[in-house]
This record gives sequence, C-alpha cells and structure tokens, in this order.
Amino acid sequence: MNPFKFENNVLYVLDQRKLPHTVDYIEIKNYQEGARAITDMLVRGAPAIGFFALYSMVLWAKFDHIEKKNFDQALLLMRSARPTAVNLNCELDKVYSLFYSRDSWEKNQLVDELLKLAQQQVSLSQTRHQAMADLMVEECEHKFSSKKLNILTHCNTGRLACGSLGTALGAISVLHSLGKVAHVYVDETRPYLQGSRLTAFELLQENISHSIVVEGCASYLMKNKMVDLVMVGADRIALNGDTANKIGTSNLSILAHYYQIPFYVLAPESTFDRTLKTGEEIHIELRDESEIKQNISPIQSKAFNPSFDVSEGALITGIVSELKIYRKGIAS
Amino acid sequence: MNPFKFENNVLYVLDQRKLPHTVDYIEIKNYQEGARAITDMLVRGAPAIGFFALYSMVLWAKFDHIEKKNFDQALLLMRSARPTAVNLNCELDKVYSLFYSRDSWEKNQLVDELLKLAQQQVSLSQTRHQAMADLMVEECEHKFSSKKLNILTHCNTGRLACGSLGTALGAISVLHSLGKVAHVYVDETRPYLQGSRLTAFELLQENISHSIVVEGCASYLMKNKMVDLVMVGADRIALNGDTANKIGTSNLSILAHYYQIPFYVLAPESTFDRTLKTGEEIHIELRDESEIKQNISPIQSKAFNPSFDVSEGALITGIVSELKIYRKGIAS
Repeated sequence: MNPFKFENNVLYVLDQRKLPHTVDYIEIKNYQEGARAITDMLVRGAPAIGFFALYSMVLWAKFDHIEKKNFDQALLLMRSARPTAVNLNCELDKVYSLFYSRDSWEKNQLVDELLKLAQQQVSLSQTRHQAMADLMVEECEHKFSSKKLNILTHCNTGRLACGSLGTALGAISVLHSLGKVAHVYVDETRPYLQGSRLTAFELLQENISHSIVVEGCASYLMKNKMVDLVMVGADRIALNGDTANKIGTSNLSILAHYYQIPFYVLAPESTFDRTLKTGEEIHIELRDESEIKQNISPIQSKAFNPSFDVSEGALITGIVSELKIYRKGIAS
Repeated sequence: MNPFKFENNVLYVLDQRKLPHTVDYIEIKNYQEGARAITDMLVRGAPAIGFFALYSMVLWAKFDHIEKKNFDQALLLMRSARPTAVNLNCELDKVYSLFYSRDSWEKNQLVDELLKLAQQQVSLSQTRHQAMADLMVEECEHKFSSKKLNILTHCNTGRLACGSLGTALGAISVLHSLGKVAHVYVDETRPYLQGSRLTAFELLQENISHSIVVEGCASYLMKNKMVDLVMVGADRIALNGDTANKIGTSNLSILAHYYQIPFYVLAPESTFDRTLKTGEEIHIELRDESEIKQNISPIQSKAFNPSFDVSEGALITGIVSELKIYRKGIAS
C-alpha cells in the first residue's frame, strides 16, 4: 500500500494516523495542503515525505503563477513542513535546481518536468531497494541455505515509510515472495508504536506470518532460538559502520551479538555520512516527554525520550546498501 | 503508600487500577469482597496479594460462622482468586495450619490469631526487605564509595507490590533516604506499564528524582554513562542464579554485562527455588495477546506475550537476599 498516489492528475495521501483500522486516501488540492499533510503527519517516514513534497510541488506549478517569488515562497513552506527531515530538503534541492536551470518556464512544461522528477526519484528509490533486497536474499541463501527464516525487525521500514519497496521490510517482503520467511517478530516500537500499528499492517497486507512483541521480549526470543536474524533500517551511518536508527535498535544489536545471531542493517548509500568517523558525532533528537507519558503516568514525573540510538558498527554483521554488503564500516 | 490498610477493625484496599491519578481506598466488607479485589486486580504484586488474603480471612472469621465447612469454602474461594500466584497459596497454607491446629475456635480468639498472623507476615517481610536494602547500601558504598547513583530499574517492586518496604524499589528508597540517589530511570515496562504507572508514582511519593524511559532506551542510557547500576526484583531464582522476572529483565542483564555495569537482583530467600538447577526448568506464563495489541494493532495480527524471562545467573553481579549477597548462583 502506497503512502500517496498521483492518479489522473490528482494527488492523494494515505492518512497514516488512521492506520491500521481505516484506509483513507485524502485528495490534496494544492501545495499548501501538501505541506500541511507532512506537518500533521498524515504521511511520515523520511523518504516518503521527500517524495510527497515533490508531488506537492507539481501542484504548485499546476495552480500558481509561475514566478520566482511564488516559487521561493512555496519551496520555503515545503522545506519547513518538518524541521529535521534531511530527505525532504534533499528532494527539494532538486526542485530548486530544476526550476532555476532556466530563466523562465511555460506552465505545462514545468508541471511535466516536476512530475517527471518526482516519478524518477520514486523509481530510483524502488530500484535501489530492490537491489538491497536482492543482496539480502543472496546473503540469506549463503548463510541459511534453504531454511525458512524467523526474522526480528524494529520500527517501520516498508512502503508506507519509503514510498517505494522499503529497506528491511522491503527485503522481508521479497524473501517472503520467494517462500523464505517462516515468521516475523515485530517490535511494537515504543513510544510511537510504528511496529504495532504500521509494520504489522503492512505484513498483514502481504499475508506474511507475524507476531507483535514488546521490546523487552528480544532476549527471550533469541535465547529460545525463535529468531534466526535481525533486520533493521537506518537513519544515518558513520564511516565505521555506527548506525543511528530508531531507539531500541542498539539494544537489539547487542543482544544479537550476545546470542551470536546475525544482525543486518539495510540502508541506501544516501544514508551514509562519510563525513562522520563514528556514531558519536551523530546528534540524537530528544523528543517530547508526552509521547512516553501519555495519560498513564503521574503528571509530575519526567520522561526521557531520545528518538534514536546508535548501534556500534562492530556489532553489525552486514550493512546492506544497493551496491554491496559492507562488513566492517562503510569506508570501502 | 500501602496497597491495603487495616484500621479500627476495618480493611481497606487501594484500588491500584486507578493509579497514578486517583488514590482511592475502598472498604472491604467481607472475605468475598476481598477475593474479588484480588481477582479484579485492585491489589496486585505477589507478596501484597498474599498479605491481603490473610486480612481477608480475618474478615471471614469476624463475620461468618466458625465451622470447618465454611472455613474450607472461604479458603478455596481465596485460593482461586488468582490462579498462578504462589505467594497467595503459601500465605493461605499458614491460615489452614492455624485453623486446623485446634478442634474448635472461639470466634474472637480466631479473629485475634488470624490478625496476628497477618501482621506477623507483613512485619517479617518488612524486616527481610530492610535487611536486603541494608546489604545493598553496603554494597554500593563498597563499589561506588560516596558517588550519588544513577539507577535503572524495571517493573514495580515497591510497597504497592509487596505490602512492605519492597525489593529493588525498597532498596532505592533506603539509598535515597541516605542521600545516595542521583536519579532513577524507570522502564515503562510494556505491556502492562507497571513502571510508568506504579513505580513512577511511588518514586514521586518519596520525592526521588526520576525519568520514565521506554525499554528500547537502555543501551542509549548505558552507552552514555547515564546509569551506574541496574536493580531489579525476581519472581523465581534457580540454583545457578538464573532469575525469572518481568519480561525485559533479561535484555537488561545482557546490556549491563556488555557495558560492564553492575546488575543486581533483590529477592528474599522465599523466591529461591533450590529444586531447580537452572532457569530452563522455570515455566514462563504466556499471557493474552490483547495486552500488547490493545486497539492499536490490526485485529488479525498476532501478538506473542510471555510475561517473564530468565536472566542468566552468570550475568548477575549479585543476588541480594535478606541473608547475604550471592555472587555465583545461590547454592552456597
């Protein structure tokens, strides 16, 4: 299921806040509504946000006067829709380059070019994710022969987050299509419950056998040999392979190491930040306490809510990109 | 705050389901209401349930005809109030022995004896917990000198669960009273959120500085040296020190081992099961999927919900009982 669709010149966004119980595609009428859909988290997941912003800019070109002042204003609004999303700015940089590559545009021509850009970017992502999945399939055949695999995953890394196949969940989907998946254990992924709400939903859509577990269950599963490997995505990867990903990932990397269970990170090369020697240089976002406390905790109690953690490169069996599987850092 | 109180011959139970937002002591008028309060989880925590059952039997003696048939019936109802609570049966065994130690009882005499038994058992538990806390204070002074400690704990192990000082949380409370606690990180403890609801509430009552964290945060805290030691309770301990406790505890034991952070289990000798060589013989209760899924997951998705896990004795720095600190299993 796609987080957005562009059909007959109309842009729709899937309201992910209503998942898993309601599948509701909402028509987006102009770029302002597009920006609002990002801000209000109808669409989430860094890659999906970036692609959706591209399509929103198509709407700008369709419905606004093609003037530099208007363009700059629209681009600024779009960039500020989510303050920390790197992908969002990367994609919009491409829109900027395209627009300023000429002195003037005929409306239809610009709409066509922007649409082509959006489609190209999604398609490129799809190709990369497929390549990652293919490498992962090969790796599993090498490592596990024909064994049907029990996989533990964390957070949401599928089509809903990516707008294309997906990273860890994309590979799980491809492994499943080849009959290689026995069962998937899905961390519910507190505090935002991406696993419980979204990953479970996507696995269900594809009829992949799965169970939701609390994060505390990981050692139990590994100790009882219920998990053959762990597969997760990544937000940022440093030169030595240190990997920032959703809080809870680092726990899994250490537990997998302890039980000698392979631990894979699936992430496109665009996630690699080769300016960072180690993960210590990665800034971790601290999010609001209310996500943890909700209304179940004493009002006066504090909560500490880092959104990501860093898994040590040395504990990662392989970092799977669209190009290759890196075994010891991503330097070569 | 006590989970129950017996004042002026009236038994009250604190409705823990309403915590942390409402503190509501409800009068228990007869033993049937006592049993129902256990079944409906107004009172929870194995030790607290056991003690509360003792007081409920005092009500039986006060208000029912003192006959063997009536006694057996009351005892049976009380025993079946929670099917798997070991402490409940242990305490009620004592009531059974007391009742059948004579051929007949005068009502007031039996009421007095049962009340004395209940008070003795609570008092004994208090003494044991205080002894454990004292040993833990000594251990901390030895290990950390005068450093104010940052402690990570899991689940709820305080007065609400125990009806007396408490195990891990009891020791934290005593350490705090000696000015030795800097900050406590409380795992929210999914799926039932004992940490978020109850431990946070108890820490707040005692003005102990604390933050609630998701289980996934443990590696982050340890990596960033925000935690000096881990302290947890136990449900059952095998000869080699393997310790069954709330799901998520085993994760912490491995993470602490990885980061070389001391990991302590605080549990009275009554928790020791020396008939078990290792934790592999400990049966783990699988609880209902709904606790995990609630209404946030797809209805057709499964959930896997083991209630406890087993931490390896080899990873435990010390098992602190009321008698001593065991370093390698509990055999000697």
